[in-house]
Amino acid sequence: MQKPQKIENLLKKKFFISQSSHIYGGVAGFFDYGPLGCSLRNNIVNYWRRVFASEPNIYEVDSSVILPEAVLKASGHVDKFCDTLIFDEVNGECFRADHYLKDKVDQETCERLDVMSLDEINETIARFDVKSPSGNKLGNATHFNLMFKTFIGPKSQNLGYLRPETAQGQFLNFKKVYELNNEKFPFGTFSVGKVFRNEISPRGGLLRVREFEQAELEFFVHPDEKVHDKYDEVKDIELTLHFGAEVQNTKKMRLKEAVDNQIIKNRCIGYFIGLTHNFLKALGFVDFRFRQHKRDEMAHYACDCWDAEILTSYGYIECVGIADRSCYDLSMHSKCSGTSLIAQKRLDKPKKEIKLEPLCDMKEWGRRFKDRLPVLLEKVKSLKIDENKLIKQIEFDGQMVGLEYKRSENTIHVEDFIPSVIEPSFGIGRLFYSLVEQVYWERRDDEERSVLSLSPVVAPYQVGLTSLRVGDYKKRLNNVFEQLRLRNIRVFVNERNVSIGRRYASADEIGVPYFVTFDSESASDGMVTIRERDSMDQIRVSIEKVVEIIDSLITGNGDFSKINK
Amino acid sequence: MQKPQKIENLLKKKFFISQSSHIYGGVAGFFDYGPLGCSLRNNIVNYWRRVFASEPNIYEVDSSVILPEAVLKASGHVDKFCDTLIFDEVNGECFRADHYLKDKVDQETCERLDVMSLDEINETIARFDVKSPSGNKLGNATHFNLMFKTFIGPKSQNLGYLRPETAQGQFLNFKKVYELNNEKFPFGTFSVGKVFRNEISPRGGLLRVREFEQAELEFFVHPDEKVHDKYDEVKDIELTLHFGAEVQNTKKMRLKEAVDNQIIKNRCIGYFIGLTHNFLKALGFVDFRFRQHKRDEMAHYACDCWDAEILTSYGYIECVGIADRSCYDLSMHSKCSGTSLIAQKRLDKPKKEIKLEPLCDMKEWGRRFKDRLPVLLEKVKSLKIDENKLIKQIEFDGQMVGLEYKRSENTIHVEDFIPSVIEPSFGIGRLFYSLVEQVYWERRDDEERSVLSLSPVVAPYQVGLTSLRVGDYKKRLNNVFEQLRLRNIRVFVNERNVSIGRRYASADEIGVPYFVTFDSESASDGMVTIRERDSMDQIRVSIEKVVEIIDSLITGNGDFSKINK
Repeated sequence: MQKPQKIENLLKKKFFISQSSHIYGGVAGFFDYGPLGCSLRNNIVNYWRRVFASEPNIYEVDSSVILPEAVLKASGHVDKFCDTLIFDEVNGECFRADHYLKDKVDQETCERLDVMSLDEINETIARFDVKSPSGNKLGNATHFNLMFKTFIGPKSQNLGYLRPETAQGQFLNFKKVYELNNEKFPFGTFSVGKVFRNEISPRGGLLRVREFEQAELEFFVHPDEKVHDKYDEVKDIELTLHFGAEVQNTKKMRLKEAVDNQIIKNRCIGYFIGLTHNFLKALGFVDFRFRQHKRDEMAHYACDCWDAEILTSYGYIECVGIADRSCYDLSMHSKCSGTSLIAQKRLDKPKKEIKLEPLCDMKEWGRRFKDRLPVLLEKVKSLKIDENKLIKQIEFDGQMVGLEYKRSENTIHVEDFIPSVIEPSFGIGRLFYSLVEQVYWERRDDEERSVLSLSPVVAPYQVGLTSLRVGDYKKRLNNVFEQLRLRNIRVFVNERNVSIGRRYASADEIGVPYFVTFDSESASDGMVTIRERDSMDQIRVSIEKVVEIIDSLITGNGDFSKINK
Repeated sequence: MQKPQKIENLLKKKFFISQSSHIYGGVAGFFDYGPLGCSLRNNIVNYWRRVFASEPNIYEVDSSVILPEAVLKASGHVDKFCDTLIFDEVNGECFRADHYLKDKVDQETCERLDVMSLDEINETIARFDVKSPSGNKLGNATHFNLMFKTFIGPKSQNLGYLRPETAQGQFLNFKKVYELNNEKFPFGTFSVGKVFRNEISPRGGLLRVREFEQAELEFFVHPDEKVHDKYDEVKDIELTLHFGAEVQNTKKMRLKEAVDNQIIKNRCIGYFIGLTHNFLKALGFVDFRFRQHKRDEMAHYACDCWDAEILTSYGYIECVGIADRSCYDLSMHSKCSGTSLIAQKRLDKPKKEIKLEPLCDMKEWGRRFKDRLPVLLEKVKSLKIDENKLIKQIEFDGQMVGLEYKRSENTIHVEDFIPSVIEPSFGIGRLFYSLVEQVYWERRDDEERSVLSLSPVVAPYQVGLTSLRVGDYKKRLNNVFEQLRLRNIRVFVNERNVSIGRRYASADEIGVPYFVTFDSESASDGMVTIRERDSMDQIRVSIEKVVEIIDSLITGNGDFSKINK
C-alpha cells in the first residue's frame, strides 16, 4: 500500500478525521475532525499562539466569515482569485487546467501552466491534442472564482462571499488596533479560523480541501522600517532555501547571510522565516525548506513571498506562506471604502515645508479674458510647481499671462504613510497532515505495527495509564490519573481487556509518547513501569515519583535514558 | 442614553467588538471581535469546555461548516427552518412577520404570531390593516429559509448550506464515537464553532446575528435510561422555572422537585439544567430562569425543551437551549442515508424469542392454484402472526386453504435501539452580550465612570500593573509581570502618561478585577498597592507576596477583605 493511503487509513480508523457527510457518500474536499484529530490540531494551534501571538503588541481579531462583495472586490479577490477551468464538452465533467494538463504536455509548457492566460491554455490543448478522460473534446477554458458565494438576507442583490483568508477581516480593523497600540509601530493582529476555497476538483486528501483552518499574523510596520527587534535571536539559524526570481536553486545558508545578500528582502520577513523554522522544528518536522515565489507566481498583493514547504509523499508541499504584502491591502481598502487607513509617524526632526501658491490677479485677468476667466484659473491651478523651476508666465488664448507666487513656510512634525504588512500565514490542516506523514513509521519486525512519533508538545495524549490486573490498583491508578490531569497533562486510561502488547501497539498508533503500567508486582514493590514509545525501552520507577518524572519528560526537562530509577 | 446603546458604545470604544466591514458601512447581523472581545469570548468557551466537556466519555468532533443538501434535507432544516417574510409591495423592503406585526396587533394575536401559518399572517395583516413603514401595501407572506445557500464546485447542481447548528455534523459521526467509547452508553460529543442563520432583518446588536459561535454537547443515552450518574450533585439546586405546555407561570423550586413532578421530563435533561445553572452562576450571571417550550413552539426534532433565559434590557433572552431531541435526528439520518445509526444493548437477562413461520405446501398449492400461486404466497407472507390467535385457514380464490406453522425458539442477547440525544446548546455571542449587560454599572458619583464587574474566570485581564514613577520600578514591575504570566494569569501593564485615577477608570471599564500600583514609596518600603475594582478598596502588601496574593484572589481561594497585609 502507498504511504498516503496507509496514513489516511490510520487517521480514519482511529477517527483523527473522517470524510464529511460520509454516511451520505461524502463531499470531496471536506473533512471532519474526530477527538484525536481535534486534540492534535488544537495542540498545533495552541503552540502557534504561544510562538507567534504571545507578545503584548500582538492582538487577536476574530472577524466574520461572510464578507460583503465590496470588501473582496477591493482586495482583488473577486477579479483575481481564480483558477482556470476546462471541461468535457459532452458530459460536463470539470477540471482545473494546470492540474489536468500537467502530464499531457512537455516539460517547458508544464512549468508555465499555472501562469498561462485563457488563450494560452486553449492553444496548449489544441497543440497537444488533449482530450477529456472520456476521450471527448474539451470546451474553451474559463476563469472560475474560488470563493464560495452566498446571499445575505432575502434580497438577491446582497452578494456575500465566504472569506478565502482571515487577513481581510484584520485589515478592515487595522485602525482600531493601531489606536489600541497607542498609534505606535510595529504591532500585529492575528486570527485563527476557518477559511473557504471552492476548489474545482479537490484531490490529495487533507492537502487540497475546500474548508480549512488558517492561523494568520499580520505584522504592521513602517515601509522604511521592515525590521524586528528580536531579529538577532534568529539570525544565525541555518536554513534550507530554494530561491531565484526565474530559475531556482536550493542552498543551505544562515538566515543573516540570506538577508545581507538581499535573497530575503528584509529583516522583518527574515525574522518570521526564522521563527517559522523554530516552530516547525519544535512540532517535530524534520524535512522542510523555504521556497521563494518566482516573479510570475507572486500573488497580486505581494512583493516578496516565501513558502515553508514540507516534504510529503506528494513532494514538497506549501504549508506556510510568509509574504510581504507591502501596503497593497490597506491602500486598496482606503481607496475603495473612502475611509483613511493611513498612519502617522512623528518625525525625529521636524521638517520645514515651503509652500508656493500662484497669485491670481482676478481684477486684471477678468478684464482681459472675461468669461474665459474660469478656464484660465483652472489652468493655473493645475500647474506643476517646482521651486527651482518656477513658471513665470503662461500662454492663454494667444496672450502671455505673467504669474507671481505667494510663499509660505510650515514646520512638519508628522509624516503620513500607509503601513506595510508582513504576513506569516499557516494552513493548519496541511501542517496536521504533513506532520503525521513525517512522524509515521513501522516497526521493522511488523508492518502492521505503525508508530506516530509525535512530540509531547502536540501528541493528543502525552501519557497512557494501564494496569494488568483490573481492580487491584484502581484507586492508586486513578490517583495518578488525577494528579497528571491537575498538571494539565493529557492522559488516558486503557483498561480494555487485551494483552499489554496490544495496548502498547494501539498507543503507538496514536502517538502516545509514554505509557505507565501497574503490574502484578506493583502492589508489593510500589513500582510501576514507564515505557518510551520510540525505543520501547522500559524503566521501573516508584509510584510516588512517577507523576514528577512524567512531567519532566513531557516538558522536555527530563531525559528518559538518564532517569534515576 | 438607553442601556443597550451605552453597552454597545463601550464595547465598540474599547474594541471588544466592531461592526463587520464597518469601513464599508457594515452589514447588519455581522460582528468582529477585537482583542478584549476575543479574550472574554475565549474565556467563556474555555470555561464551558471545563464544565461540560472534560469527562473522559465526552469527545470533541469538529465538522465542516458547509454541508450538502441531503444532510439538511434529512434533518428537516431545508423544509422547516424558516421564518415568515412579508415585504413592502412598492419598495421591496423585507420584514420578519412576527417581529414586524407584534406591536400592530392585539395581545391575543401577538402571542400566536410565531406559530401562525402563511394564511393566518395574511388574514392578520388584512384584519388589522397593517401597512409597511412607508405606508405601502404589504405583499403576501412567504416562507424564507434561514440557511445560507452556496454551490460546491463548478457545477450549479451541487447545492450546499452553511450549517445552522453544529449538531448535524456530530450526528453524522455518531457511529465512530460510539465505537471509540467501546459501544457503551452514555457518551457525548461536542463541537464549538461558527454557525450561520440568514436572518431576514437582524436588529438588537449582538443578540440577533447572522453568524455566531455555538458550543453544543450531544449526550447520547438509551431511550429508557435518560439519567445521569452525577444527577445527585445537582438535584438540590434551587431553580427559577417558567413552565407549562400552554399557559406558563414562574415558580422557584428544587431541581429534584421539578423532576419528581415530571415538570422536567427526565433526570438527564434535569442534570444538564442543573449544570447550566452552575455554569451561569460561575460566569457571574445574577438574573436568569429556565423556561420550558410551549407545546406549539417546540422545534420539529424536540420532545422536551428548556431555554436558559437571561434578563437583559430586551427582556428575558434565550441564551441556552437544553433539548431532548429524542431519536429524531439519528432516525432520519439512518433512513435518508441508508446507513444504520442503530446501537445495541446487551440485555441483563437473555430473552427467549419465539418465531412462527407459515409452512407453504408448494406442491399441493401449486397443483391447486397454478399461476395464481405467487399471489397466494404473497398473501400468506403478509399475514399478521399472533401466537395466541393463529390463523388456521384462509380463503383464496373462493377456496379454503389450511395453514400450518414452523415454530422456532431463539435466545436474544442484545437489543437494537436508536439512541436518544439530550442536547445543551449555548449561543456564545448571546452569553457574551448579556453577561456584559448584567455586570455593567456606573459609579454613583459619576455617570461617565462605568464598571464591568466581570469575574476573574472570564475577565480579559485579571490584573493590571502600573507604576507612578516611570523607570524607577521597571525591573521589579517586569519581574512581577513575568511571574504572573508564568502562572497563566492574564496581566497587562498600563504605563500611559495619565493620572492614576484615569488608569483605574480605564481598567474598570474593561473589567479588570485587581490593579497593582508601584508608587513613590515602593522603593523605600518594598510595598505596593492592590486595588479591588468593585469596592475601590486598597491594601498595601509586600512586593515579595504580591504574586501569591493575586493568584489566591483570582482562583477564588483568597478573600480581599481578609488579606494579611
